[in-house]
Amino acid sequence: MMGRTHYAADVNAEAIGKKVRVAGWVHRRRDHGGLVFVDLRDRTGLVQIVAEPENPMFATLDRVRAEYVVGVQGTVRARPEGMVNPDLASGAVEIVPDEVVVYAESKTPPFNVPDAEQVDELLRLKYRYLDLRRPTLISNLILRDRALMAIRRFFHEHGFLDVETPSLARSTPEGARDFLVPSRIQPGHFYALPQSPQIFKQLLMVAGIDRYYQIAKVFRDEDLRADRQPEFTQIDVEMSFMDREAILTMMEEMLVTLFQEVLGVSLEQFPRMTWKAAMTQYGSDKPDLRAGPPLKDLTSVAQGLGWEVFSQSEHVVGAHLIGYQPSRKELDGWVERARSLGASGLVWIVRGPDGSLRSSAAKWLGEDGLLKLAEAAELASGDTLLMAAGSGWAPFEVTGQLRLAFARENGRLEPGWRFLWVTEFPLFEWSEEEGRLVSAHHPFTMPHPDDIERLTDDPAAVRSEAYDVVLNGTELASGSLRIYQPELQAKIFEVLGLSGDETAEKFGFLLDAFQYGAPPHGGIAFGLDRLLMLMAGADSIRDVIAFPKTARGTDPLMNAPSEVSDAQLAEVYLSIRR
Amino acid sequence: MMGRTHYAADVNAEAIGKKVRVAGWVHRRRDHGGLVFVDLRDRTGLVQIVAEPENPMFATLDRVRAEYVVGVQGTVRARPEGMVNPDLASGAVEIVPDEVVVYAESKTPPFNVPDAEQVDELLRLKYRYLDLRRPTLISNLILRDRALMAIRRFFHEHGFLDVETPSLARSTPEGARDFLVPSRIQPGHFYALPQSPQIFKQLLMVAGIDRYYQIAKVFRDEDLRADRQPEFTQIDVEMSFMDREAILTMMEEMLVTLFQEVLGVSLEQFPRMTWKAAMTQYGSDKPDLRAGPPLKDLTSVAQGLGWEVFSQSEHVVGAHLIGYQPSRKELDGWVERARSLGASGLVWIVRGPDGSLRSSAAKWLGEDGLLKLAEAAELASGDTLLMAAGSGWAPFEVTGQLRLAFARENGRLEPGWRFLWVTEFPLFEWSEEEGRLVSAHHPFTMPHPDDIERLTDDPAAVRSEAYDVVLNGTELASGSLRIYQPELQAKIFEVLGLSGDETAEKFGFLLDAFQYGAPPHGGIAFGLDRLLMLMAGADSIRDVIAFPKTARGTDPLMNAPSEVSDAQLAEVYLSIRR
Repeated sequence: MMGRTHYAADVNAEAIGKKVRVAGWVHRRRDHGGLVFVDLRDRTGLVQIVAEPENPMFATLDRVRAEYVVGVQGTVRARPEGMVNPDLASGAVEIVPDEVVVYAESKTPPFNVPDAEQVDELLRLKYRYLDLRRPTLISNLILRDRALMAIRRFFHEHGFLDVETPSLARSTPEGARDFLVPSRIQPGHFYALPQSPQIFKQLLMVAGIDRYYQIAKVFRDEDLRADRQPEFTQIDVEMSFMDREAILTMMEEMLVTLFQEVLGVSLEQFPRMTWKAAMTQYGSDKPDLRAGPPLKDLTSVAQGLGWEVFSQSEHVVGAHLIGYQPSRKELDGWVERARSLGASGLVWIVRGPDGSLRSSAAKWLGEDGLLKLAEAAELASGDTLLMAAGSGWAPFEVTGQLRLAFARENGRLEPGWRFLWVTEFPLFEWSEEEGRLVSAHHPFTMPHPDDIERLTDDPAAVRSEAYDVVLNGTELASGSLRIYQPELQAKIFEVLGLSGDETAEKFGFLLDAFQYGAPPHGGIAFGLDRLLMLMAGADSIRDVIAFPKTARGTDPLMNAPSEVSDAQLAEVYLSIRR
Repeated sequence: MMGRTHYAADVNAEAIGKKVRVAGWVHRRRDHGGLVFVDLRDRTGLVQIVAEPENPMFATLDRVRAEYVVGVQGTVRARPEGMVNPDLASGAVEIVPDEVVVYAESKTPPFNVPDAEQVDELLRLKYRYLDLRRPTLISNLILRDRALMAIRRFFHEHGFLDVETPSLARSTPEGARDFLVPSRIQPGHFYALPQSPQIFKQLLMVAGIDRYYQIAKVFRDEDLRADRQPEFTQIDVEMSFMDREAILTMMEEMLVTLFQEVLGVSLEQFPRMTWKAAMTQYGSDKPDLRAGPPLKDLTSVAQGLGWEVFSQSEHVVGAHLIGYQPSRKELDGWVERARSLGASGLVWIVRGPDGSLRSSAAKWLGEDGLLKLAEAAELASGDTLLMAAGSGWAPFEVTGQLRLAFARENGRLEPGWRFLWVTEFPLFEWSEEEGRLVSAHHPFTMPHPDDIERLTDDPAAVRSEAYDVVLNGTELASGSLRIYQPELQAKIFEVLGLSGDETAEKFGFLLDAFQYGAPPHGGIAFGLDRLLMLMAGADSIRDVIAFPKTARGTDPLMNAPSEVSDAQLAEVYLSIRR
């Protein structure tokens, strides 16, 4: 047997009358009217095998059970009228076997593959090889494969070299926590698994590779949140002699190609938005453009209404909820939610279908005040406005959250793929923990050329040449132009309060490299797992990873991590600290 | 500036009269006849920039030094007659600049990039970003990229899914030494970096992925030999429902496609040879078919010549050195070499140009005996025969080594790409260390169907369904059909002397998986670095890896491995054992 001629999904009307060989797993077996029916499953789908009692293979087919592995040779025929299954690629036909080989039997599995979706995830992870038999998960792995190929083809065609960088690298104290790998040859010394190939890719630019990409496994020993993995995959890119515009255009083209080839979706040109505009209009550095209109900055109108809550606030910002007439209870819920987000309060204005206005602040603002605000916010009949007041970004962030929550929880997210570029992030951010400015992106990020003068007197106001790709409110990629001038890099370290010794210790080899001719360069890194999760419409990145780990970083299938022998530890000069 | 229009190698006669923009590094700068010449280097090669003193860019160009990073805009013109350089793609033209931007200067580098080949490797590794500027190394990375793409395209087109398997896996006591990664969440527990995705890929077959490939980073903490790396890359493949013939054909087609696309070489069909035939004919399980004729098994003739050295030996084997008339001193050298390989002696027969025979054993074999041996070996005038006698594989291995040494050291390796398949390896081999049979490949290797009966009474004689790809005497890939029947697997563990507990501890999850319907499957893994080294004609795998480690496993560039803080160790519950 062996030598399959068709996958299940390829056995269709064109194959009627032909002899075929298929192979796979028994998805379901049932007796009906004296006949035996077997749905045979392979990675493409199902195909029905049917045997009458006179068929010499009847007995063999009759004894198979769920998840047996079988090969079937037989003749394809049209299903009887009324038995056609339009949901299946092979739903118009069935195979009458003349040979059936049972390659392997199966114990009763711990859960039924067809119903696995309902099973507890921990059990599914323990039996991942059964869970992966689910059509949804197999489809996700097929999507992943197709996406990887489309991405690689794009980069290859655009002159990027796929260069592998080391996995056994060096621990750098900046950034997230490293996974360590003890050395057996140098006692007390450790490699670290890379958190990103950042330094290697910059060295490749110094080496003249010019255009680099890698689909790279990276590692972060962070406290795991629900949908985070200790190892994950990133599309890592770096380019020389290209300005920001050229880099953004190239990366956008890559995503357009990917979506076209894999999903058949034509993306429109990505809007560009500065970080400041994103914060002002959406209260977020990753705006979800599907979630209705931007925020309304009502500060100038609100401050003139004579109510001190507004007039003493730096900003008054409104989330405009279109076609929403909340009950009093719902309005109380919004107020509560704003408070839980850190706001001191929330003012709502509801414009009834008849154009009338009611508000939690009617008593202070008066009919005229409400009208002015409603007009400034372009509040139509039937709409609701939620307003927060305060200083800094807080009122933007609070109303941004409410805007998003409203759209998500009320089915108001517009369908589609809403990409955008966010640019000009701040170069530094204040770390309360360290009591100093730290790099918002990383210390190699190029300052915005218009702001270089301000590095000395007002570093916190300096914008950077960093950029993010955002899709439907999720950050997909983050990148920047890099500093390639040693003097400018030294200046940045000075602002960061790092001494020469510290920078030499942490980044010495990169700074050394920059002494020998570094080209202007920039790059980006995409979180592949998250991108695929969105493309697959999956709920979790675990659904697009073949062998994911739990939120605690364990693998219930292999039972990893595990204990090792003392001899193994002795070889690397370690002992367990109790 | 920026926005390069041409790479150096693309500035050719077609560009004459056009305005171009190039960017790269100053390879060489020289003054000649009052003009300044700069060879600008990018990853494709060199292009000459030339400025007369009246050129407004003369001063800028005059001050650049080696490894400065510059962008040049200018007009292409034909070089004056007699100045054409046929070794360069751009050798017929030069660029007259109208704009030159110096992006970055360079300190005097620790070695000249054009002469880097002669520099000590440790220094080159420390300044790898300079070493990588060498055209040879850049070409190797370009070759690597093209090969990766060709390989991936082949697998993609043949329905293989690229599936990423975990890097944080579980330590298994079989095989080479694992690199360990301590867990911060589970004190005293460790992940291990994978030595291969073997178990994961077999689980993917159980899951129904059907055809899998991955270009995977794998890790072995072995004692490093000269040309071995602690992390290396493997092309990892597994297929279901395919017999050995189908698997070998598919993999051969992959290599044929790779060589055609990347090197433009048309490979012939690979010969197949059983392990026994390889040992008998070449004294090696990785025969180099370029090294002249196979060994001659002269046992039956030699045993009848009445000389007890031959008549008491199990095997008498000859290496036939064609067109070789060694001096007495050279012959003594061969005898010495045979002894250093463990032979008790070596008999030589030299056939002079006139057909006369002389031999180290003339006195015992007589003219007649020599003639019989020479005829049996088809020794023509001008040839030499080196014979070893003994038992087991030793005389084959010794003469196999001599055959190879002769061809390598005397320029007798035929040019070309001589691939072959070696099949039917022994399933087990005897471990002196452990005093038991161990798996020659790994314990999941399928026994040869004709030998399954012998598992009980003569396991050492059982052949396997393992196969290797050999190229020019180097093992490139190793694979096998796998056992998919739980009972057969249990039988193998029994022969290996492993108890149920031990097998459950080591391989429990795989054996569990096989209870739930494992398809017939098999696969292979190619050492990518070694394959690329051969394709590139490089001397070391370090020349086809962007950032290789030294033979001691260190990275002189990043200075890895390195010490880490006690706080970092405490977080993973470890202390250094002094």
